Amino acid sequence: MTQIRFALAQIDTCVGALDDNAAKVLDYSRRAAADDARVVVFPEMTLTGYPIEDLALRRTFRQAAWDKANELAAALKKEGLRDLYVVVGTVGTDHETSKPYNRLVVLHDGVVWAGYDKHFLPNYGVFDEFRIFKAGERSVVLDVDGARLGVAICEDIWQDGGPVSELAGRDIDALVTINGSPYEEGKTDVRFELAKRRAAEVEAPLIYLNQVGGQDDLVFDGGSFVVDADGELVERSPMFMEDLSYWTLDTAKVRQTRTTVAPMLDPDEEVYTACVLGLKDYMAKNRFTGVTLGLSGGIDSALVAAMAADAVGGGNVHGISMPSMYSSDGSKDDAADLAANIGAHYDVQPIEPLFKAFQGQLDLDGVAAENLQARIRGVIVMAYSNSKGLLAVATGNKSELACGYSTIYGDAVGGYAPIKDLLKTRVWELARWRNKAAAAGVGIGGLKIVGNEAGNPGAPLKDGVMIPVASIEKAPSAELRPGQKDSDSLPEYELLDKVLAAYIEHAHGRADLLADGFDEKTVDTVMRLVDRAEWKRRQYPLGPKVTALAFGRDRRLPITNAFRE
Amino acid sequence: MTQIRFALAQIDTCVGALDDNAAKVLDYSRRAAADDARVVVFPEMTLTGYPIEDLALRRTFRQAAWDKANELAAALKKEGLRDLYVVVGTVGTDHETSKPYNRLVVLHDGVVWAGYDKHFLPNYGVFDEFRIFKAGERSVVLDVDGARLGVAICEDIWQDGGPVSELAGRDIDALVTINGSPYEEGKTDVRFELAKRRAAEVEAPLIYLNQVGGQDDLVFDGGSFVVDADGELVERSPMFMEDLSYWTLDTAKVRQTRTTVAPMLDPDEEVYTACVLGLKDYMAKNRFTGVTLGLSGGIDSALVAAMAADAVGGGNVHGISMPSMYSSDGSKDDAADLAANIGAHYDVQPIEPLFKAFQGQLDLDGVAAENLQARIRGVIVMAYSNSKGLLAVATGNKSELACGYSTIYGDAVGGYAPIKDLLKTRVWELARWRNKAAAAGVGIGGLKIVGNEAGNPGAPLKDGVMIPVASIEKAPSAELRPGQKDSDSLPEYELLDKVLAAYIEHAHGRADLLADGFDEKTVDTVMRLVDRAEWKRRQYPLGPKVTALAFGRDRRLPITNAFRE
Repeated sequence: MTQIRFALAQIDTCVGALDDNAAKVLDYSRRAAADDARVVVFPEMTLTGYPIEDLALRRTFRQAAWDKANELAAALKKEGLRDLYVVVGTVGTDHETSKPYNRLVVLHDGVVWAGYDKHFLPNYGVFDEFRIFKAGERSVVLDVDGARLGVAICEDIWQDGGPVSELAGRDIDALVTINGSPYEEGKTDVRFELAKRRAAEVEAPLIYLNQVGGQDDLVFDGGSFVVDADGELVERSPMFMEDLSYWTLDTAKVRQTRTTVAPMLDPDEEVYTACVLGLKDYMAKNRFTGVTLGLSGGIDSALVAAMAADAVGGGNVHGISMPSMYSSDGSKDDAADLAANIGAHYDVQPIEPLFKAFQGQLDLDGVAAENLQARIRGVIVMAYSNSKGLLAVATGNKSELACGYSTIYGDAVGGYAPIKDLLKTRVWELARWRNKAAAAGVGIGGLKIVGNEAGNPGAPLKDGVMIPVASIEKAPSAELRPGQKDSDSLPEYELLDKVLAAYIEHAHGRADLLADGFDEKTVDTVMRLVDRAEWKRRQYPLGPKVTALAFGRDRRLPITNAFRE
Repeated sequence: MTQIRFALAQIDTCVGALDDNAAKVLDYSRRAAADDARVVVFPEMTLTGYPIEDLALRRTFRQAAWDKANELAAALKKEGLRDLYVVVGTVGTDHETSKPYNRLVVLHDGVVWAGYDKHFLPNYGVFDEFRIFKAGERSVVLDVDGARLGVAICEDIWQDGGPVSELAGRDIDALVTINGSPYEEGKTDVRFELAKRRAAEVEAPLIYLNQVGGQDDLVFDGGSFVVDADGELVERSPMFMEDLSYWTLDTAKVRQTRTTVAPMLDPDEEVYTACVLGLKDYMAKNRFTGVTLGLSGGIDSALVAAMAADAVGGGNVHGISMPSMYSSDGSKDDAADLAANIGAHYDVQPIEPLFKAFQGQLDLDGVAAENLQARIRGVIVMAYSNSKGLLAVATGNKSELACGYSTIYGDAVGGYAPIKDLLKTRVWELARWRNKAAAAGVGIGGLKIVGNEAGNPGAPLKDGVMIPVASIEKAPSAELRPGQKDSDSLPEYELLDKVLAAYIEHAHGRADLLADGFDEKTVDTVMRLVDRAEWKRRQYPLGPKVTALAFGRDRRLPITNAFRE
């Protein structure tokens, strides 16, 4: 009988930041050793950050990562941690082809020990791994005090066959998996069911260690866990936070002892928190400390401002009210109330004089005149961004982006778009959830996310409500012409969002949509709008992906890349 | 002994435009049959257009493409073309997995005949095929009048092994390859050497039929050809034009008879023409008839305006001079001269009054005030775009984009950026080439490209020069503050472009760059600028890719997609 104490080091890494990532591994390893851990497990591509995209193709980067792994192994030994087994992910190189590997290594006794290369390379959705990495071809079993530990990396357990199948025949005592599994609503259950199936396949407990934190437009939710060979959940780490939890493998027992199991979150809380964490980490990794945005009094900008306040504190949010001749008094009041509730800076910059100056030269009408108003606002927001060093955040939601119901270079300006993957109806739901949480005492910054573990006291709210009720309940309007309503151009959002889900997420064609029960006029309107909006979406800034299919995840190099050659 | 007359139908398809593409196949097939062709060969994914990206994943699209192929086969038969063998590309489906295939079919005797599925799926550079398609697993030989024709699709001949190796053992009389091979400078020779090698491998002539035309940010250059088993070039179609050429296979002879061989183009002419074709097709496929852009008097906007005039005629170009208090008289004159030379509409919209109106509210200085000027210009360009239905074209070059030397939402606005993949030194070279061509009588619209085969007479030029000499020869300046020069912020372009080529295209790290002989200060300046510019590049609009590594090709759905479900 052997007992092995595992530390589950669920950390937030940064792409390219080899020094910072290695320092964090050293820190967590020290803590784990102090708590008598024998093995400490870190997420996929710990040292390099994940996903590193085409950065893996740079030889100089791979060399630097390799040097860093050796340096870290030596540092661990020097600190008296030579007996600890430190499981980390990094990038390797196939010296024959010079192609990179997505690699797991064990740091032990001062050296970089054992190498397992990811076998299944996902190449769908947000993943481009097959285009970047060479696939590993063999399974690896580690011997720790006589216990046999199989290893796998993320996608390896999502596909049938391959290394897990091989390990099933190798009499392992536990399967250690390191993951960089991006957040998607509902994915917690999917991962758990999958892990149960693989644990049964290898007839051993499965350790699922996931990355946490925002990286560019992805959010990693953590939520690491252990299931035993019977499929019982015996450990679960919290979501959205860095964490160091422990679990002890008893090789003599199938049914393992249950330790900490963090509770599940409410679905709205989960999505809201994912959006906040995405923004917070995007700012931290790009070294922004404050944000600026236009506050119209509408629900989108109100929700984004609340998220920004939760991410970096209301005092770091600079809201700008930019009323036109068509803005209602109610909208202006709602914007001011929201800013006060979250403790944001608040300026008023009327656009009418600027609009008149342009019109004196250009004399525009119709949509061109409407876009002009939105673009003047875009110029003002970017002026705040440039002159004060603030991140401009865009406030568009997925429904309007899908339909092209926004002005490019106007309301769409910004470096990050926190709600770009939320349908409008979800925006309302999250606003209501945030108000409910505020009423229950969750003040600005009080969410449990990476770097914010302590929480903050609640802020004083006008009428006890964080997001003004009128912003949630009034009919949506761009206020670019007298009496304008979104419903002049779009189906009602309750209906629109259902059609969008069917057309985009589920790839239903026209005949399918009619069979789904949507009326012909609505179907044709939505399809025409979506098909025409592609170009505008391409121009749209980065934002978190929180559902299975997000728009605009479109790049080959990570943005928040701290690597310097 | 058998003789087979092939027609090489080098056509310009449009992604998603099943009806138009099929109509073009029918038209070219009629002409080929009238000229006694036995086999007519079209490019890769003829019916669907190429590259179709994630559109292939939509079941409804695959069904529509399949129906269209059957309809086309029936139409060919109905027109009395039942004996012709029509080789086209389309999308197939693996019914077990529902995954799409990149498929070659032969339309003959009223039915869709034979199916070969692409084996090697490129997943590097601009290609994402492995993520989209399932790989084919078998080689196919067609029997036409007793002659044995092997077939392959594009990447199949770029990789060793696979279907070409198999065909080497199957005693074929010719290898027919259908291609969608995007333009890159210098690629003509690479393709030819490759084709020679494969012809030798299969001991038979190789027909290389390539697509022509712009599709989103790719340009396909055509330049189809035939090499015989000895590696002799026996036919070459022109570049950048639709074309129907003929070549007759004589199965009894190794050394085949030489027919038409189009001449090679001058390297500057080739790149210039690729840029013009990319813009022309982007406009046609998105149904734009005119463009608008700011004309500063500088070289970038002058070259882009000349390209636009060559693409759609000077009368469809709307140039806007937007002088500020810092614009020199020389710059204003050069802009006006250029507009007159290309026959463009020309408006002057001073930005000083608008700048003052903003400054009265915002009181900016430094870079924020410089960006404000560029953004006011961006608003004006988009106002022209919106009110007149014109495509806004951006004028940034690759050197400044790589270094972030542009204003996002300012000079970077636009839907297409014709020179975004040209280094600044190349911009000067192409301007000089265009002037030389004009002096030799190549007027606006006189380039030989798709849809422009007839050419036009030359326009009258001021001083006999199309692009004013001062625009080419003066020191580059953004003119956003008094006396500003690009060289205040950037190394001289002659040096900068060399460092950029090494750092970006050849992935040299810092140590490599120093070993290349660049001085430390320059290397550190350029690396810092490039590393910081990533975010801005992401926001940049689409443009043609003309070198091996372009920025910003980042999408999963084609833009110019004419498919309607």
